[in-house]
Amino acid sequence: MASYKTVEIKEDIISRNNQGASRIREGLKGKGVFYLNVMSSPGSGKTTLLKRVIDRLKGDFCIGVIEADIDSEEDAGAIAEATGVKTIQMHTGGACHITCQMSEEALEALGVDGLNFVILENIGNLVCPAEFDTGAHENLVLLSVPEGDDKPLKYPLMFEVATMVAITKTDVMPVFDFSVDRAKENIRMRNEKAPVFVTCARTDEGVEELTEYIRGKAEGICGRK
Amino acid sequence: MASYKTVEIKEDIISRNNQGASRIREGLKGKGVFYLNVMSSPGSGKTTLLKRVIDRLKGDFCIGVIEADIDSEEDAGAIAEATGVKTIQMHTGGACHITCQMSEEALEALGVDGLNFVILENIGNLVCPAEFDTGAHENLVLLSVPEGDDKPLKYPLMFEVATMVAITKTDVMPVFDFSVDRAKENIRMRNEKAPVFVTCARTDEGVEELTEYIRGKAEGICGRK
Repeated sequence: MASYKTVEIKEDIISRNNQGASRIREGLKGKGVFYLNVMSSPGSGKTTLLKRVIDRLKGDFCIGVIEADIDSEEDAGAIAEATGVKTIQMHTGGACHITCQMSEEALEALGVDGLNFVILENIGNLVCPAEFDTGAHENLVLLSVPEGDDKPLKYPLMFEVATMVAITKTDVMPVFDFSVDRAKENIRMRNEKAPVFVTCARTDEGVEELTEYIRGKAEGICGRK
Repeated sequence: MASYKTVEIKEDIISRNNQGASRIREGLKGKGVFYLNVMSSPGSGKTTLLKRVIDRLKGDFCIGVIEADIDSEEDAGAIAEATGVKTIQMHTGGACHITCQMSEEALEALGVDGLNFVILENIGNLVCPAEFDTGAHENLVLLSVPEGDDKPLKYPLMFEVATMVAITKTDVMPVFDFSVDRAKENIRMRNEKAPVFVTCARTDEGVEELTEYIRGKAEGICGRK
């Protein structure tokens, strides 16, 4: 009986979250603000890849960044210093994911007036953030080479909700048993549509292709410059 | 008001979980069965390190392994094939952590009669599993070199609940910006006591030291052979 109750509570929470997320998404679209949610395991290279992508886009968009972490200020400092764009650090107080309510509060704290492109770097967690729609227009999911090409099999929902996937840290491929083909096959078992970009922030491999794809999606919301 | 309610539910769940976990721990101790919980991010090398540790211990203990995953059978297959010890695969149905109830059901499904050493490989997640005491006697937490030495700062609770920490994949240190000293400092900010082992399953670095430490803890529960 206890488990029935838990399921009902969870479904109710998620259904209410999704309604709120749709409101956020529509509201931002009405204002011409593109909202990108970036998710992955801890240490997959979200911050480093984002620095490269932001550097390529900041001349054409007014970008703001929300760095979500349980603790520490490291990522917000790194992004602000490297790119100069408006950045806030959000602490979740132990929470393992960002709900639409937390997303809304972070957007308010950041302040979207004057911006047309907001990036949320979600908590490093390949499980829970996938369950909670943040109201973003696109979900970029990273899979780093050191994690292994089997991860889409073991963490299905994350790869189902992805609208684009970036394989990261390809420069270390020679020292890991990672096959891009196997990774793509495993991603395809979870997601038939999301394009997969093979990237490396250090060598710049694939960063241009990923950036141009994101640019196209952003222009669809905030209009072509 | 909604948030007050959520906190109460969560505290109640965790307090009930911890009571159940204490019962499991005491029950296993009474039977002379040592229970080790292994936690880390996805892809930190739990399965590979465990294969090496089990190989060193299986002559002296009767070992059983519970592989917890959201989906896929990969890890149970890998452990069973490599080590020959009794192994079960547990699927959490989407859940991001193992509660004491799930832990108890898995122990029953494995069957502890005839065993004196059980290993739980928890869900790959650096956040949620730390909140739920599984009833294990020891918590081994892995931090892999590719993840970065800053992770103990960003995921505090996981390193607080650790009773031993293994830095893994040290063979790839030359291609990553990872400092063992910095990692140890960051772990010490979260945990003053847990010993830190510098390991590599591929080269066998540090595996003997970690194994001998685990052996000592196991002998404390199931008696010296």
